[in-house]
This record gives sequence, structure tokens and C-alpha cells, in this order.
Amino acid sequence: MTMTGLSAVEARDRMASGALSAVDYMRGCLDRIAATDGEIQAFEWFDADFALRQAEGADQHRKSGRPIGPLHGLPVALKDVIDTRGIPTANGTQVDAGRVPEHDAVIVEKLRAAGAIIIGKTVTTELAFMHPSKTRNPVNPAHTPGGSSSGSAAAVAAGMVPLAVGTQTGGSVIRPAAYCGITGFLPSTGSIPRTGVLTQSPTLDRLGVFARSVEDAAMLAEVLFGHDDLDKATAPAPFPRLLSVASAAVPVRPQFAFVRTPYWDKATEACQQALEELVDELGEGCFEPVLPEAFGEAASVRERINLAEMAKCYHRYRRDGADQLSLRLSEALERGGKVTAHDYIAALDWPDYLYSALDAVFQRCDAILTPAAPGSAPKGLESTGDPVFNGIWTLCGTPAITLPLFADEDGMPMGVQLVGPRGGDARLLRTARWLVKHIETDGQGD
Amino acid sequence: MTMTGLSAVEARDRMASGALSAVDYMRGCLDRIAATDGEIQAFEWFDADFALRQAEGADQHRKSGRPIGPLHGLPVALKDVIDTRGIPTANGTQVDAGRVPEHDAVIVEKLRAAGAIIIGKTVTTELAFMHPSKTRNPVNPAHTPGGSSSGSAAAVAAGMVPLAVGTQTGGSVIRPAAYCGITGFLPSTGSIPRTGVLTQSPTLDRLGVFARSVEDAAMLAEVLFGHDDLDKATAPAPFPRLLSVASAAVPVRPQFAFVRTPYWDKATEACQQALEELVDELGEGCFEPVLPEAFGEAASVRERINLAEMAKCYHRYRRDGADQLSLRLSEALERGGKVTAHDYIAALDWPDYLYSALDAVFQRCDAILTPAAPGSAPKGLESTGDPVFNGIWTLCGTPAITLPLFADEDGMPMGVQLVGPRGGDARLLRTARWLVKHIETDGQGD
Repeated sequence: MTMTGLSAVEARDRMASGALSAVDYMRGCLDRIAATDGEIQAFEWFDADFALRQAEGADQHRKSGRPIGPLHGLPVALKDVIDTRGIPTANGTQVDAGRVPEHDAVIVEKLRAAGAIIIGKTVTTELAFMHPSKTRNPVNPAHTPGGSSSGSAAAVAAGMVPLAVGTQTGGSVIRPAAYCGITGFLPSTGSIPRTGVLTQSPTLDRLGVFARSVEDAAMLAEVLFGHDDLDKATAPAPFPRLLSVASAAVPVRPQFAFVRTPYWDKATEACQQALEELVDELGEGCFEPVLPEAFGEAASVRERINLAEMAKCYHRYRRDGADQLSLRLSEALERGGKVTAHDYIAALDWPDYLYSALDAVFQRCDAILTPAAPGSAPKGLESTGDPVFNGIWTLCGTPAITLPLFADEDGMPMGVQLVGPRGGDARLLRTARWLVKHIETDGQGD
Repeated sequence: MTMTGLSAVEARDRMASGALSAVDYMRGCLDRIAATDGEIQAFEWFDADFALRQAEGADQHRKSGRPIGPLHGLPVALKDVIDTRGIPTANGTQVDAGRVPEHDAVIVEKLRAAGAIIIGKTVTTELAFMHPSKTRNPVNPAHTPGGSSSGSAAAVAAGMVPLAVGTQTGGSVIRPAAYCGITGFLPSTGSIPRTGVLTQSPTLDRLGVFARSVEDAAMLAEVLFGHDDLDKATAPAPFPRLLSVASAAVPVRPQFAFVRTPYWDKATEACQQALEELVDELGEGCFEPVLPEAFGEAASVRERINLAEMAKCYHRYRRDGADQLSLRLSEALERGGKVTAHDYIAALDWPDYLYSALDAVFQRCDAILTPAAPGSAPKGLESTGDPVFNGIWTLCGTPAITLPLFADEDGMPMGVQLVGPRGGDARLLRTARWLVKHIETDGQGD
């Protein structure tokens, strides 16, 4: 890990107390980037001097005695679909090469206000869809890091940065985090404002965070939550105490619901076995609910919404740069353009319809336990893997977190995904932390 | 008018004081229905005994000394697309003939809780779309009453009931009110919960009220406003004091903005002349803003949303009763089914886009002044008239009211439509009442 194994929360606390300077911490990150990013290629844009200057400014700010923010001095990497004022934001497409936004995305304002340092922009797949990027998996560079938030996941996994932000429309936070063996947290729909972030599918797009522990993810997400008039999915809500709830002891041992999903036979044997062993180990702390057959439609319903909205939202890319788009994206836009309004509007009924069944499950458990991906990261860079285990949860707007609890026989990480009820983000984090501790202590810790 | 010219507010006050019994008031309505509805045919379902029994119950309730609601004893007629428990609700189609809902619509619960008496169900066009109904215009039975809320408008105009509820997706409240020479009030999108009302187009559908004065409309609408978890367009909001604001004196003389709309040449000469004379009379109290050319697209954008959503919402009618639908509706469903998701989603951007221009106008005026319809009610019953002067305002979600201020050379009424800013319902009613008084007193009243 960066800086002799400090977590982001620990680093934050030391920088706040003055025991660690932002410059020293940043140097640790820069050294790690210099040593590893040549191979991993997590960064799309990166300027070591600029990062160091910001760290110097952070140290001066603290020494001046002025109040500091909750992320003071912490470097954060941003997926290159998040607008940054004065810093190139190319959305992973040649069509936007050289594009420099005039405004920060709302979450970038929030990060800056919290004292975080924008260390660089991370590689995304083309327009955050499925055409892969150059980034490699830090655990084994012959494998994909997953996508579309490829660089954000890889940068955190390689120890280049403690924290990163990504987006998910299909499975673009949960899957790369699982493939790279880190924690990926996707808060409930409407939690984090998306203004200034590339819009692929307004119904599905969500921001999520990457970190190396549940607490670190909670600390970052807490700063990003909020209401934004320009993002109608967000609503005024009390300030979420994600970090303190996530750090707290559970009042009673959590209850889990094991959901294989209708796509269980797409999971590898190693993945199936790991999940089943965990479920066995949890014993009475886990039951297996029966979900309605309609969940078998979730993946195609999610895809229909995604493609239809993408065809509209990416209209200008088709118009202005059709020849610079990948065949994969062009075909998806073509398909999306053919979806009828009738089918699209009907698809929009599904999230609430499916959620009503999940709601009944959440009456009886703290979290659903399910694969984060069909298995470990596939070999090769030509695909970012299959989001089939993410569609239901993305569609339903539920918060989800992947925990790097398993590895396959080759040492490649496999994630366990926990899913909570809409709006139950803080409790989901607390349950996730309990599970990590429970596994780490071999069941002796609770 | 019913009961020797009492307004609904006056009748309500007398019934509350005990000076008038609900039974006597109801008898007045029943007599009028018996005398006129054979020709006008405003009612789809009506049961005189049932209405009288409810009035008797209301009188007993009052005499018992228990608290009474703000509409105590007042008969209200409901468009037959509003679900009423135990009372047939056929939505104007043979497909739903004999349908008896198990639940009241949310607004019916509100009306009952307020002490109103559901006197009957009024004729609607087929599924609240454009295929005409049997109802005739009370001013001249050779003319259409307008639609789709044909029976509600006619029943109030004929003096059969003091108050009625309708719905508008295109121009179905404002236009029939104008054609029948009464007041029609369409509150802002999201004001009145629609749960239990036929859904034609969730983006556009709104409930509205018919009355014979601005105050009466305000009194009825006030009871219907509210938040409903099942209607996502509604939001928790302070209780609107529509009647007291509508009844109050204006603090300063209102300012009007005269908007001809891009459809001005569709208005009859009589309509154009009446509006222009009114504008002249208002003098400095009225200016004519320039609206962006994009408003010329409003009618077709509104239609695209309407047809696409209707194709989805009326899917079961096509599936279960295609042979019982009119050619006009079948063709519209056919067209709606062909709208692409791309075009539909793009159309959904328009309301806010257009409203941003209206917002600038509302900074400078209290209300926009514009035709309610192209002229007076067309002769014949084969069409309910053209909603072209309603599309912009329906699409933009603005509150609108039509006032029966003019008549053509044959004595057929023509309406003036006032439009206010979103959420500015109470002030719009106050401005409307000022205008009525101003005209009645020939400009001497202010």
C-alpha cells in the first residue's frame, strides 16, 4: 500500500494532525505511479509537478491554522468522464481529444472544498461503454482490469492512489473493483450529483468510489453525497454519516440473503464454489430467498434502457465523429436508435416492479450477498468482462459494494458483492465492514 | 345558476351555517339535471336516489354537531376516467363497459373527506383522447362542448352541478370550459395527485376543475392539491391557500403579457379581435413579449410525447379490444407505437427548455394572456375542436385558467386563457379574479 500501508483514513488523520505532510504523502504516490504506471497505464492525464504544487499548497494551508476539510491532502484520481476545469477531459474518445472543460463537475467542487487533491484523470473505456482501454490489471497485466472505470480501479489496486472515483451504467464500478481486488462502492441512485459528468444513460448512470477498505470508501463517498438542483435524481436529504456508521460495531450479527440470480450458470466454478463456501460458513446468518422469475429479464431491460438513452445522449458523437467511434459502440448506438418509445417507457416500469420484490427480501436481511462478476478478470485486454451480475442492481437503484474476499487458483481476485436497500448506504457499509472483519478473523471476530 | 344564482362558495357557506340544507341544494341540481340532461347528455352515470341519500347523510352529519369539511354538502361531478369505488367507471370505451373500481381515486378520497357529494360520472371522449362523445354544448346543442372533459364542462355550464373535475393531456379542461362559457382551471403539473385516474400520458396528464367563477374553482382545487407517494409528479408542499388568495385584493394592478403564440393565424377573426380589444383596453397593463421561434415546435413535441406514452399506457386496449376502438384512436396508437425512444427522450427535454424562456416573461408579468381556443365551439359533434392553443402550456407544466369573457356574433362563448408560472397557482387565480372584475365593471373596478 501507499505510504507504508496507511489506509486513507489513517493518512487523512495524520495529515490533519501534522504528523504527515501532504507533500510526503504525495511523493509516495508519485513514486508508485512512476514505478508502475508505465506498465499498468491507469492514467489518461497526469502532471507530477502540478500534483506536488497542490500538496505544497495543502501543507501551507494547514500550517496557516485555517480550517481543513475532511479529505485534506488526500490525492484522488478521477475517471476521465468527470469534467475538471482547465484539465483535459476526453471521455475516452478521439472525438473529445483536447477538450478542456470550463467548469468542474459538482463532485470535483465537493472534493476540492473537502481539501482533496485531484492527482490526475484515469483511463476510461470509450465513452464509458464497452470498448476496452489500454489499462492493465495490476494483479496480472495479462488480464483486463475490467471497465469502464478501468484506470480508477487499477490506480487504486496498484497503490498509486488511495482513492478514486468512477461511474457505473452497467457494472463499471463493481466489476473492475472485483477484478482488481479492491473495494468498489456504488451508492444508491440519486446519492451523488452527476452534473458535469458524461451522460450515457440518465436513468442508470451513477457515480461510485474505489478504495482499499470499506472505511476509506465510506470516507470518500460521504464527501460526494448531496443534492444538486441540476441533477433531478438527487433530493434534499440529511447529511449521511457514512464513515462513522461504517466504522461502528454492528448492533447484532448481520443477516444475509444469498441471491444466485438467474445468471448463476454464467459464474465460473471457482466463483460459485467461493460463494457457496462463504454461505456455508455464515450458516444461520444467511438464507436463500426465491426471487420472481421476472428477474431473468433484468439484464435485457437494463440494456434496453441503456442503449435507448445512449443513442439520444451520444447523438452528437454519431453526428460529429461517426468515423472515430468503435464498431462496438456504433452498433450499440444503431441498436439503441431503433428501440421504440413504447418498449423504452415499458422498461422504465421495471426498476420499481423488481424492487418491490427486493424490498420484501430486505425486510428479512441486512444485505443481499451475490457475485460481483462471473469470476476473476478474463485474460487479455480485448474485453472488459461481463456485467451480467451487475444489471439487476444497477437497474433497481440499490447501493452495492464489492469486497475482495476471494482469489482463484491463479491468485486473481474475485469479489463478493453486497447489495442493500435503496437509501440504506450507511448500513450497507457497516455490514460490509463486519463481513470483511469476520472473514479476516476467520469467524472469530464477531 | 343552480339554487337561485348562488355561487358554490355561497352555497357552501349557507350549508355550513345551516341556512341551506344539502338536500334542498341537491334537489335544485337534480331538477336541473332532469330538465336539461336529456338533451345535453353530460352524465355517463347518475343515480338521483343515491345522490339524495348522500345529501340527507350530509345534513344529518351537520346536525350531529360533528366537524364538517370545506366542501360540505356540495355536489361534484367527476369525469368518467376517475375511479370511484362501487360506481361504474368506463373511461369512455366499450372495452371498460361495466367496470366497477374497487378503490376510489386519491382525489375522490379527498373530496369525500372534504364533505363533497359525488353526484355522478360525466361523459368523456373515448379514453380521454379525441374521438367525440354524445354530450352537447348547453349554450347551443348544435355545437360541440369540446373535449375530452365534455360532460364535466357541460354539466357545470348547464347549471346541473356547481363544480366538476376533469383531466387535460392536450387541452381537455381549458378548451371545453371556453366552449361552454365557464371557468376552467388547470393547476401546475404535480399539484393534484393522479392515482386512480386513467393514465394516458404520465408526462402530460393533469387534473383540472370546472366552475362558474374563479373563487369556486379555487375552492374546489384547494381540496384536491396534495402530495401522493404513488404519483411521483407530486411533491410535499405547503398547503395552498387558493381560495383566500384568489379572493384577496391584488396589491398592485396586475401586469399581463399578451402571447399570440406561433399559432395565431389559426384563431378566428372574432377571437383575434376580442383578444386585441382586451389588450388595448389593458393599455400599459399589458405588453407583448417576443418568444423564441422554438415555441413553434411545441405542438408537435407535445403530440409526440402524448402519442408515445399513450401507445404504451393503452397497450391493453389495443391487445384486448382493438375492434372496439375508434379509427381515430387506433391510428393514433399506431403512430405512437412507431415513435423511437430517441425522439421521445429528446422531446422530454423540451418542457424545461421552453419554460426557461417563459420564466423570463414571468419575471415581468403576473400572467400571460392568450386564447383558450381558436374561437368559439365549432358546430357539429364530430370533432371536439382544436387544442392548438393549449399545447405549449400543457407541455410546460404551467398553471392555466380560462375565463368566459367573450362571445362571438352568435352568442357562443369564447375564453381568454391566463397562464402563470409553475407553482404560481394561487396568484394566477387572484390575477384572474381581478381581470373578471375589471371587465365586469368596465375598467371602473380597479
